[in-house]
Amino acid sequence: MKPKTSIKIGLLGLGVVGAGVAQTLLQKGPLFASRTGCTLEIKKILVRDIAKKRGAAVPEALLTMDAEEILGDSEIEIVIELMGGEQPAHDYICRAVSSGKHVVTANKEVLAKHGPELLSMAEAHGVSIFYEASVGGGIPLIAPFRQELIANEIHGIQAIINGTTNYILTKMSQEGLPFDIALKQAQELGYAEADPTNDVEAHDAAYKLSILATLAFRSDVRPADIYREGISRLTPKDFKYAQELGYAIKLLAIGKLNDGAIQVRVHPALVPIDLLLAKVDGVFNAVYVEGDLVGRVLFYGQGAGSLPTSSSVVANVLDLAQSLSTGATPRPNIRLDAPKALLPFGDIRTRYYLRVSVADRPGVLAQIAKVLGDHLISISSFIQKESDESAQTAEIVIMTHLAQESAMLAARTDLEKLTTVYEIGSFIRVEG
Amino acid sequence: MKPKTSIKIGLLGLGVVGAGVAQTLLQKGPLFASRTGCTLEIKKILVRDIAKKRGAAVPEALLTMDAEEILGDSEIEIVIELMGGEQPAHDYICRAVSSGKHVVTANKEVLAKHGPELLSMAEAHGVSIFYEASVGGGIPLIAPFRQELIANEIHGIQAIINGTTNYILTKMSQEGLPFDIALKQAQELGYAEADPTNDVEAHDAAYKLSILATLAFRSDVRPADIYREGISRLTPKDFKYAQELGYAIKLLAIGKLNDGAIQVRVHPALVPIDLLLAKVDGVFNAVYVEGDLVGRVLFYGQGAGSLPTSSSVVANVLDLAQSLSTGATPRPNIRLDAPKALLPFGDIRTRYYLRVSVADRPGVLAQIAKVLGDHLISISSFIQKESDESAQTAEIVIMTHLAQESAMLAARTDLEKLTTVYEIGSFIRVEG
Repeated sequence: MKPKTSIKIGLLGLGVVGAGVAQTLLQKGPLFASRTGCTLEIKKILVRDIAKKRGAAVPEALLTMDAEEILGDSEIEIVIELMGGEQPAHDYICRAVSSGKHVVTANKEVLAKHGPELLSMAEAHGVSIFYEASVGGGIPLIAPFRQELIANEIHGIQAIINGTTNYILTKMSQEGLPFDIALKQAQELGYAEADPTNDVEAHDAAYKLSILATLAFRSDVRPADIYREGISRLTPKDFKYAQELGYAIKLLAIGKLNDGAIQVRVHPALVPIDLLLAKVDGVFNAVYVEGDLVGRVLFYGQGAGSLPTSSSVVANVLDLAQSLSTGATPRPNIRLDAPKALLPFGDIRTRYYLRVSVADRPGVLAQIAKVLGDHLISISSFIQKESDESAQTAEIVIMTHLAQESAMLAARTDLEKLTTVYEIGSFIRVEG
Repeated sequence: MKPKTSIKIGLLGLGVVGAGVAQTLLQKGPLFASRTGCTLEIKKILVRDIAKKRGAAVPEALLTMDAEEILGDSEIEIVIELMGGEQPAHDYICRAVSSGKHVVTANKEVLAKHGPELLSMAEAHGVSIFYEASVGGGIPLIAPFRQELIANEIHGIQAIINGTTNYILTKMSQEGLPFDIALKQAQELGYAEADPTNDVEAHDAAYKLSILATLAFRSDVRPADIYREGISRLTPKDFKYAQELGYAIKLLAIGKLNDGAIQVRVHPALVPIDLLLAKVDGVFNAVYVEGDLVGRVLFYGQGAGSLPTSSSVVANVLDLAQSLSTGATPRPNIRLDAPKALLPFGDIRTRYYLRVSVADRPGVLAQIAKVLGDHLISISSFIQKESDESAQTAEIVIMTHLAQESAMLAARTDLEKLTTVYEIGSFIRVEG
């Protein structure tokens, strides 16, 4: 490959992140040229509506509504895909790669669903797909797996990787708000979308976990492999009780190796308040990685937003530009050379928090304890939280020791059959 | 450069980290070969005493007491320097580089004092010096400046980068121990050396800060440029008062850009208890980096120890091996292309905590307030902590608003002249 002094770039998408990237490349061009030894030139930007009024100072002549002007332009060597969503982003990435263009993308959905195939395709065409911004916005998370932590066997990942839900949970915790109100506030601030399903039901976190777990375990992990549970069923009461017991409630994305099998899951979890993860508030993200050599390392920062995401996107572009300008081969992708089985979700072992409405009469606790004991679940604490004398009901909170998920689910079913148990109000796993 | 399938390595030093690296390379050889596409072979290991009994399972035939067997061996392409200390490590690194060998080192003292010259020399000889392990043990800290954060202008660094002092401060805080006792416990656990000066007087933290600041600001920052103050004058009383006021006390390494000038300093500081930095306890390290795009990102983990440090050393070796095996040019070093002036220490602005013993009589507070006011220092809180009626003395704690260091020092001198001020017991900067 012969060294270049100028590299032409095509940008797909000019939304929040696209505008940040365009602005960064345009404003910092001379600085980047001096750092990489070559000039980066945005040749075209694909937009949905060319007539739309834009805040960002992007020369109108760069805009096009025809993807072909980028994908079919043999002068363009790097395509930055920032459209989001599965289609047409996936098609465009495939087109770019098969035309011999390098791709930088922040698209977690495409990477999670199609990453391994896309990376193989890129390798076959002698190009790279870089995706640092797809997880954790500006936080370095992809590169450490490929480089700084590469001597490690990774044992686990424990992460808060969705800013929207973490904002909502922080509000619920700090202000005692119900889910709906906290969600509404997040929407008003632009942290949550009009249809919040993707964040609130943890699809977004599952996409990101599948990307991280694939890198960490060198095994193909897809979103469909991940147990997923959102945050919409959490109540202010659970935050209050959790606090009293010394826990925060967070939406955790967890990947772990157990005897060579992988467990991957995203769900709300009680996290001991003295752990750093419990103090990660608002829209921030944090990812713990545990390796055999390094022990536990934590990466923390803004997991979304125009400029933080641009930081990672542009870093990837500069990395590619540096390789192209020196004629070096870009670093190869991690090989998925250690395929592992998935641990069935029923086989995971963790601790549990249960909030149960029961009849307020003697013998009820003994009944519940017996059901749990029959399923080999031992109780670590058992607290009566409230009683309503007129209704003759009481609310109790149970924390268990380590138990198997399948046993816990069976116990839960049996508890629901007790005539003295009116409702299992909450069922939350405990981590950390 | 033609691709290699086998790369020979010389190891200088077989202490705690050296043994970890040797063990990792020997045990994980096949894994690394499959990940990098080439076999890594330790050809020789320099030790001080070949007769010494060693726990690590290192073949005796590899050991030598003659550095020449490594530095003079043209087959050895990568030298790993893990001897520590300035000499003879610096000489050996120079010899290796000038013989065309790549160097991986964890030596913060050599890098801090001689980094820019060594890196220029390496460039002239077409080799690389990698030093990820020199700061923060296994935490990725050097690579992010060179790669993932490269699109940013870095505005600041705020770091806990010495595990020994953080362990001592944690003990003092949690158990109310005086410095001497906490130091002794750290020594018994092997966290502090018999002569603890290097850690306790913050030389080690200053070395690391100079390495980070040089990368962050792309400007040559040496240990001698750094204001440095150790932890030996802190008292249990200060921890108690700080806690009451909502602060932890940490040894912070700070690098900041102020109107284009750099301030670099290492000293104890009060840190608001709700910041993540305040919760970094024991031997752990944490580094905040603030960039114009990324905002604030935090890196956290074990800053020392055999295996965490090996994680970074071996990652650097694998990175080099990958480049050598594919014939690629290793990534160039950051250029110090933005030289900046140092802000004189008297010009920094921060907040201050003062603990003062005064005569317990009317009018004293007014006198102190006047002295501070004369130096344009305004007080944010003023608390009488204790009085000793028999001795007619009282102890007061003063927290100031932002003030200039030189004004504060002048005020301090004037305060000491007051006959009603018996002693300025503590003088600690407040950050965050």
